[in-house]
Amino acid sequence: MAASAPSIIGIDLGGTKLAGAAFDADGTILDRHTRALSGRSGTDVAALIVEQVRALRSGTAAIADGVGVSVPGIYRAGTGTVWAPNIPGWNDFPLRDALSTAFPDMRVVIDSDRAAYIMGETWRGAARGAKDAIFLAVGTGIGAGILVNGNILRGHGDIGGAIGWLALERPYTRAWDSCGCFEYQASGPGLARVANDLLADDPAIASELRREGGPALTAADILAAHGRGDALATRVVDNAVALWGMTAANLVSLFNPETIIFGGGVFGPATSLLDRIRAEAERWAQPIAITQVRFVASALAGDAGVYGAGALALHAVARPPSGSIPSLA
Amino acid sequence: MAASAPSIIGIDLGGTKLAGAAFDADGTILDRHTRALSGRSGTDVAALIVEQVRALRSGTAAIADGVGVSVPGIYRAGTGTVWAPNIPGWNDFPLRDALSTAFPDMRVVIDSDRAAYIMGETWRGAARGAKDAIFLAVGTGIGAGILVNGNILRGHGDIGGAIGWLALERPYTRAWDSCGCFEYQASGPGLARVANDLLADDPAIASELRREGGPALTAADILAAHGRGDALATRVVDNAVALWGMTAANLVSLFNPETIIFGGGVFGPATSLLDRIRAEAERWAQPIAITQVRFVASALAGDAGVYGAGALALHAVARPPSGSIPSLA
Repeated sequence: MAASAPSIIGIDLGGTKLAGAAFDADGTILDRHTRALSGRSGTDVAALIVEQVRALRSGTAAIADGVGVSVPGIYRAGTGTVWAPNIPGWNDFPLRDALSTAFPDMRVVIDSDRAAYIMGETWRGAARGAKDAIFLAVGTGIGAGILVNGNILRGHGDIGGAIGWLALERPYTRAWDSCGCFEYQASGPGLARVANDLLADDPAIASELRREGGPALTAADILAAHGRGDALATRVVDNAVALWGMTAANLVSLFNPETIIFGGGVFGPATSLLDRIRAEAERWAQPIAITQVRFVASALAGDAGVYGAGALALHAVARPPSGSIPSLA
Repeated sequence: MAASAPSIIGIDLGGTKLAGAAFDADGTILDRHTRALSGRSGTDVAALIVEQVRALRSGTAAIADGVGVSVPGIYRAGTGTVWAPNIPGWNDFPLRDALSTAFPDMRVVIDSDRAAYIMGETWRGAARGAKDAIFLAVGTGIGAGILVNGNILRGHGDIGGAIGWLALERPYTRAWDSCGCFEYQASGPGLARVANDLLADDPAIASELRREGGPALTAADILAAHGRGDALATRVVDNAVALWGMTAANLVSLFNPETIIFGGGVFGPATSLLDRIRAEAERWAQPIAITQVRFVASALAGDAGVYGAGALALHAVARPPSGSIPSLA
């Protein structure tokens, strides 16, 4: 590594743990730590981030030039504050000020987890070097990290990529009020909801899922039962494949991306369905744009956030500061 | 106007005519001309553009620093060529070379009509100064001009914004093969298709549209009949409002824009439906993002293309060149 190349730190804040790594400018991990949040809230979570950054700086010979943080919620770039529903006290938490005060010599960059995922995958994962790429994260919720000509799509109010709300069939159903038409049916809990609805609608239907139905049923159970030929699980998976395919088609028609990456907890086990998702998308999408896109599984899986946080920092260190807004756009 | 402020020329090439204007840097029109294409094809169309630019330069005291051209099709930024299905011989026409050769002292910028529309509306129309705004053009076809943090969304292959292909309901129907689920039903000809299908399905249904049904039926006829309470026209319009609303919702959830502009030949007469479209979108969209967006009609209407072409040129003149790609991104 050249003496002038920056070294950076990436921090992936989740709802229950904090993963951190020190990187050189090529994306090689020099050191990494993971800490449980252990019920911390408010400023204690920020203190844990500060502690972890200090540990990563002292543990590596290189001086870290920038720190990137991926947060599980919304980052408001104008105010430097974070809304993270799973961290108590983080309704509008001033994380940028907290980190800039603790590390006046480092560039501090913060963004949502979905923004981090696509930055990580284009840096060191399944879409290296891509400038038009999308990370579709399907897990407990559904969100998209979207890169348009190399820049993160943030939106006017920093909440772009809320793809769980996609309208994909009508008429509208009140059950979708809480999380949207797409997420209600096609997130991890969405697969379980559809399965439980089918089990309730027809008490006579035979399925191995009946004995594990109810609140405990998971997407992994359903995908495993589908793999064993369970008829009800197959109906649930077919429904999800149709919706994932329509969504991918809509991304292709609107964004004309070169890569769509499928990640999150459900991909994972649903990665074997990518060919079927593509076949479904081919029916719907703009016919030239669909020939120009690859559908791939996340290459970084659970590390997409920490790599992405590193990529956010590297991106910022490589560019001059631009006022109070991280220079991603 | 300061002596150093640029003056620019905008050219809006349509399928049948060429509209051109000379602007000062504030967007005031100094001179304008419109010429019919009169069946011209291939290089003759380029020659007409050159002739019009020369006329606009000589007709104004100001020296024009840049020329922007809006084209009715796809502009391939990498090669500088245009695909325009309604202009014979323009399958891959080298327009950038033709204009750069004719005007070596001017910056030449070319983009699709939908890109021009959103540039025009954010310069001098319904979304002045907006950085996250979308022009939804509904006419013979459907397309979207999308601005993400001030930059046109072009896509990997220059065909981003192909929103007519949006998947909005299932199952897939073969009738949609030619133009997509959304455009098939909700473009101008789409409204007529839906009306004619309903008339054919039920020969007994009373409607003033029956006497004008068939190939001659237009969206304007249907909207007028809807205004007079015609029951069949109302079914057609209700269907379109639902699809326009779902589409607007999807744009809101994905892009979190500050403004969506409804334009094209159908808006126009359908502008009175904007409140209903918004009400429909409110059911589907991400609930915070929908509160952050305005739905408005195009302020420039038929002039959106020529203003947009001017805005493309101004944008380029205000920035240094960046290789062979217009410096929009």
